[in-house]
Amino acid sequence: MTARLRLEQCGLGAGKKARLHRILYHHGLRNGTALFLPYDQGLEHGPRDFFANPRAADPRYIMKLALEGGFNGVAIQIGLAEKFYWDYAGEVPLILKLNGKTEIPPEANALSPVHASVEDAVRLGADAVGYTLYVGTPAQEEDFAQFHVVRRDAQRFGIPLIVWAYPRGEAIDNKGGRDSFYAVHYAARTASELGADVVKVNFPHPEKHVPPAYLSDLGSQEAIDEVVRAANRTLVLVSGGSLASDEAMVEKAAESMSAGATGLIFGRNVWQRDYDDSLRFVAELRDVLAKYPTP
Amino acid sequence: MTARLRLEQCGLGAGKKARLHRILYHHGLRNGTALFLPYDQGLEHGPRDFFANPRAADPRYIMKLALEGGFNGVAIQIGLAEKFYWDYAGEVPLILKLNGKTEIPPEANALSPVHASVEDAVRLGADAVGYTLYVGTPAQEEDFAQFHVVRRDAQRFGIPLIVWAYPRGEAIDNKGGRDSFYAVHYAARTASELGADVVKVNFPHPEKHVPPAYLSDLGSQEAIDEVVRAANRTLVLVSGGSLASDEAMVEKAAESMSAGATGLIFGRNVWQRDYDDSLRFVAELRDVLAKYPTP
Amino acid sequence: MTARLRLEQCGLGAGKKARLHRILYHHGLRNGTALFLPYDQGLEHGPRDFFANPRAADPRYIMKLALEGGFNGVAIQIGLAEKFYWDYAGEVPLILKLNGKTEIPPEANALSPVHASVEDAVRLGADAVGYTLYVGTPAQEEDFAQFHVVRRDAQRFGIPLIVWAYPRGEAIDNKGGRDSFYAVHYAARTASELGADVVKVNFPHPEKHVPPAYLSDLGSQEAIDEVVRAANRTLVLVSGGSLASDEAMVEKAAESMSAGATGLIFGRNVWQRDYDDSLRFVAELRDVLAKYPTP
Amino acid sequence: MTARLRLEQCGLGAGKKARLHRILYHHGLRNGTALFLPYDQGLEHGPRDFFANPRAADPRYIMKLALEGGFNGVAIQIGLAEKFYWDYAGEVPLILKLNGKTEIPPEANALSPVHASVEDAVRLGADAVGYTLYVGTPAQEEDFAQFHVVRRDAQRFGIPLIVWAYPRGEAIDNKGGRDSFYAVHYAARTASELGADVVKVNFPHPEKHVPPAYLSDLGSQEAIDEVVRAANRTLVLVSGGSLASDEAMVEKAAESMSAGATGLIFGRNVWQRDYDDSLRFVAELRDVLAKYPTP
Amino acid sequence: MTARLRLEQCGLGAGKKARLHRILYHHGLRNGTALFLPYDQGLEHGPRDFFANPRAADPRYIMKLALEGGFNGVAIQIGLAEKFYWDYAGEVPLILKLNGKTEIPPEANALSPVHASVEDAVRLGADAVGYTLYVGTPAQEEDFAQFHVVRRDAQRFGIPLIVWAYPRGEAIDNKGGRDSFYAVHYAARTASELGADVVKVNFPHPEKHVPPAYLSDLGSQEAIDEVVRAANRTLVLVSGGSLASDEAMVEKAAESMSAGATGLIFGRNVWQRDYDDSLRFVAELRDVLAKYPTP
Repeated sequence: MTARLRLEQCGLGAGKKARLHRILYHHGLRNGTALFLPYDQGLEHGPRDFFANPRAADPRYIMKLALEGGFNGVAIQIGLAEKFYWDYAGEVPLILKLNGKTEIPPEANALSPVHASVEDAVRLGADAVGYTLYVGTPAQEEDFAQFHVVRRDAQRFGIPLIVWAYPRGEAIDNKGGRDSFYAVHYAARTASELGADVVKVNFPHPEKHVPPAYLSDLGSQEAIDEVVRAANRTLVLVSGGSLASDEAMVEKAAESMSAGATGLIFGRNVWQRDYDDSLRFVAELRDVLAKYPTP
Repeated sequence: MTARLRLEQCGLGAGKKARLHRILYHHGLRNGTALFLPYDQGLEHGPRDFFANPRAADPRYIMKLALEGGFNGVAIQIGLAEKFYWDYAGEVPLILKLNGKTEIPPEANALSPVHASVEDAVRLGADAVGYTLYVGTPAQEEDFAQFHVVRRDAQRFGIPLIVWAYPRGEAIDNKGGRDSFYAVHYAARTASELGADVVKVNFPHPEKHVPPAYLSDLGSQEAIDEVVRAANRTLVLVSGGSLASDEAMVEKAAESMSAGATGLIFGRNVWQRDYDDSLRFVAELRDVLAKYPTP
Repeated sequence: MTARLRLEQCGLGAGKKARLHRILYHHGLRNGTALFLPYDQGLEHGPRDFFANPRAADPRYIMKLALEGGFNGVAIQIGLAEKFYWDYAGEVPLILKLNGKTEIPPEANALSPVHASVEDAVRLGADAVGYTLYVGTPAQEEDFAQFHVVRRDAQRFGIPLIVWAYPRGEAIDNKGGRDSFYAVHYAARTASELGADVVKVNFPHPEKHVPPAYLSDLGSQEAIDEVVRAANRTLVLVSGGSLASDEAMVEKAAESMSAGATGLIFGRNVWQRDYDDSLRFVAELRDVLAKYPTP
Repeated sequence: MTARLRLEQCGLGAGKKARLHRILYHHGLRNGTALFLPYDQGLEHGPRDFFANPRAADPRYIMKLALEGGFNGVAIQIGLAEKFYWDYAGEVPLILKLNGKTEIPPEANALSPVHASVEDAVRLGADAVGYTLYVGTPAQEEDFAQFHVVRRDAQRFGIPLIVWAYPRGEAIDNKGGRDSFYAVHYAARTASELGADVVKVNFPHPEKHVPPAYLSDLGSQEAIDEVVRAANRTLVLVSGGSLASDEAMVEKAAESMSAGATGLIFGRNVWQRDYDDSLRFVAELRDVLAKYPTP
Repeated sequence: MTARLRLEQCGLGAGKKARLHRILYHHGLRNGTALFLPYDQGLEHGPRDFFANPRAADPRYIMKLALEGGFNGVAIQIGLAEKFYWDYAGEVPLILKLNGKTEIPPEANALSPVHASVEDAVRLGADAVGYTLYVGTPAQEEDFAQFHVVRRDAQRFGIPLIVWAYPRGEAIDNKGGRDSFYAVHYAARTASELGADVVKVNFPHPEKHVPPAYLSDLGSQEAIDEVVRAANRTLVLVSGGSLASDEAMVEKAAESMSAGATGLIFGRNVWQRDYDDSLRFVAELRDVLAKYPTP
């Protein structure tokens, strides 16, 4: 078990520290852990993601779920933020997602284009911004270039920068795939080296670490331990990935927190079921978080 | 039937609300509905579009038609706006179309380049700007990047932003085509997530929704209901697409308004016939709109 | 008794609303009222203000007092914010005071020069900015000009703008003085007309309203009622002015809240006594605020 | 005796901390104290200041004295920096003085105009910038306005900002004069509130504190203690003022360091005598500094 | 043996000269030579590079090693600089690496994208910036274009520019490979011609110089002599490349210094072993440097 990072240790300026403090200590369990609700799937996957629970197509439903479920923040795109955040302004932290794409064209050269700015986030009263970095694709030049602007502005305005670090591309597919230990491990380190304050990773599959001479025979706890270590002073959020059951997800959540992650980010696993079942599952996740307060 | 959005519900600043109020309540039926006349086909398709009614090649003809037909606005490109809007300034709302292209080169990588700015729209006294977003093409990075600038400026200057959300590209062709329910549904949501105030979509073909696990067996009313729902707080305009007869178009118009759309946008169907016949068809459309006032 | 303004009624964008919501509902009594601690007297009056309680010369003492006393925010200048806010970032809201002056030169032409920007406030994670507007001095041209920049930037970045509306200058002295009903009444209206989101006024002396034809024979409750009414959708904070006793101050506080003010702003009256006595007096003020929740 | 500030306590970003660390720990006694050599008197007073020791008119003489005397930095204007610093670049820290004036016109409205920028300092490899703030003059509006730009740029570029806090003007003259305890005390606080990282003050004359109710009957140690306390997290440098003898200056230096000052800044007292005598006097000052290391 | 360049001979402005002077004469052996510690492998190769010595995954370990080993600087990416440099600010020079990439996608078109700016380096108190230039790849247009911006800003701000001159691409592979004398020789000259102040090269393999008419039959000393000569007034740093043993590396280090190189840059060879062994190896390298002081 790794010691959880405290905000004082992360090299943050006053603005980033103030905003992360609000997220981690004035919302959710108020114990330094976080549970985030991402809601950009209507763009990333299209509205088909709402078929399982049609009420979830309405952003108001999501905002209410975030409030009642005691989430530490919702991550949405600029259009929904402009239309819906005013109604809930200040009640739940806003993470403005600055880039995004549709899943329609092929992903070989995946790049998530920027369509909103850090200044939009400031204007809307967001407490953080989100950026999807596709680690390992041939488009990394453009990706790093547009990330540069986001990082610079986030530093200038004191807005925490959360990086969705997603391994992608043919080379990744050939080295164990996007959820392999190798890929997640490298993605976490990349986000840290490039200047993320917080990094969102999928839970790694320790059995998949194809490159020769890579660490082998890791258990799942050891794998997530190594990922958190690779992120060093970047706070880590773990998402559910393609895990099967609630039970399995809760177990991975506990392993993540035990490794020193700061929190969890669960979207479809939460809102692709009916409201009461969502809250019941959230309660289980909160029980995990309650066991890992940051001193 | 979905409740029609009122402007108060759309997360608009004062400038956008004022300009949309003028469009919706000081023009047309003055009941919160809209009928727009788009006239950018001379660029998009070339002047061949005027062969059916050669007088329509003259923008003055179109402006007069818009006035006499009681349209809520005309959508034109910057060159025609500079040359013709002065004569009718303030009499009919101007929607300045900010991007556009010729149909001459192949469309595999369709991107509609920007050739005018929101500031041009302010200077000319336009009440809204229009932007064509090609959803699903491999060029979405550049498209989102130039849309970002337009959205930002529209927000800054308080100008309503109408997005022509057009599914395009090989991937779309392989998943049911540009008018499939899947494509129109996804396009409406994309425009909403990226920050459109108003989205123009083609009427969806509910029988075409190829991706597996997609909603099936929808009737045409259910399909347009879903599209309007996907757009959430973005006002929806429906265009005729490739419908066959006036009767069919009026029926689709009624279904659209019943679904909660704010209005209609009809171009060639209106002006590719003689003047009196245009006005007669417009009168039919107005009869539909009169039945769906926004309270 | 006037109904207290709710944030939804104030014409605020999402960022200003979010930040004021945090100040009013996540701090202090969390009931929509506010108690602020201003600490710019070291600049405005010089360090002699700390002679009564030398520990108050240390900004850390003030920050601890703000936390333990449950204040809704501390108002400090840029230098102290840079040096001390990091330690408490996010724990108590920061109101960055953007202008200020020494009391050394004569005040005939009083103007409080700007030495920090709204962007500094954003960068430091402040929840609001403060500006001292000297209403009625011959320097009002420069004052309005520099206020213009602050207001514009506050609007652009979504940061609430709190105006210290201080009647000053010979003309004010000749018409009843800076605390006269005439002067405070006019100052509140001036701040509202120029774009303040929140205005800080001294409690008016109803017996002093020299200009002929001005409202006369007002009781103190009526006077503060009129001041809050003049501010219309600008939230009102009342400071103690030169009141004599704790009892008198608490009474004026109650009259202010009954008039519809949002809260109180007390500095020297709080920290120019020993720590325990400060907290005791704060508890009395909080008792008043508890009786006037905003629904 | 007050504990000396450590750099970790001053709310500095990495760049300011790195540059101050270099000044305080890689030069001079390398023990966290500082001895600076100011050399802007040729502008401020004119070349008459060099009559006492004509060799001091040559900036090379001063640079050599700084090196041989083990100073922590020399403070010079842009012209001399451009012409002479290259020869000694990196050997002794450069403090680029950004404003200055001649003594020729009357001083009633004293303002020291800016004639170089923080960016000049960066380009030249300076480790800090200096700014003269005339506290208490009627020109404080312009002074604060130009200071605002310097402070902002120093923050942006991570360059430490040393403020020469000089009480000036008729009002100061009427309240005990520029070296009175009142004036120095207020000046130190003003620099701290406005954002100085380091403040240079004259040693206060405790017997002069004219404003009624001001602290009285202070000894000289108590007076400098209060000044350092007023500066809180701003590092303090003390200059000799108009002291009479070497012995008296060394005594004041010791009192300053005992009060928690970071160091001394002596110009004319050093170089208005012959070279060897300068070094002898410097050695005495270094003996004082050696007794007050910062842990 | 070539005479070692003195800083006065390099055409540097005052800022670059001051900063290089600090690096070369206030750190390390303080004799004008340099030993740098690069630590960007977590990004360039991924965290697998830390498997040999897992403690090296923690940037604090590296910073401590740099301090205890008496290095003249550490080269890190912006993310680690933001998070870790504050703790050691000014204690060891920071070389901010401005570009970098992952090794995941294929390298045919290698380009190292920029994700930080010279202004970031100024703000953080860095003493130099680093840029990886891939000499010989088809992407040299973009590479030169982004280098142009870095060089211009480095000149403007007086920050020394260290170029990692790496021959890469198919054409290089076909002409002896990246470590051939031909490739290293050309890379050194390219960096010098484009404006590097310092160039980092791998030790050339003199036996590999494929292009016809190229210099032949060189010994290893002659080869590095030629490389240093090609760099003319650009200071040269030599890295270990893929040398086999400590003994061989120390020999190459001596040849490099004898050729007139300014210093060495060793990363994995240093920290991919345990701490004490690292320090032991560093001591050997320092023994070499001690023999080649710059007068």
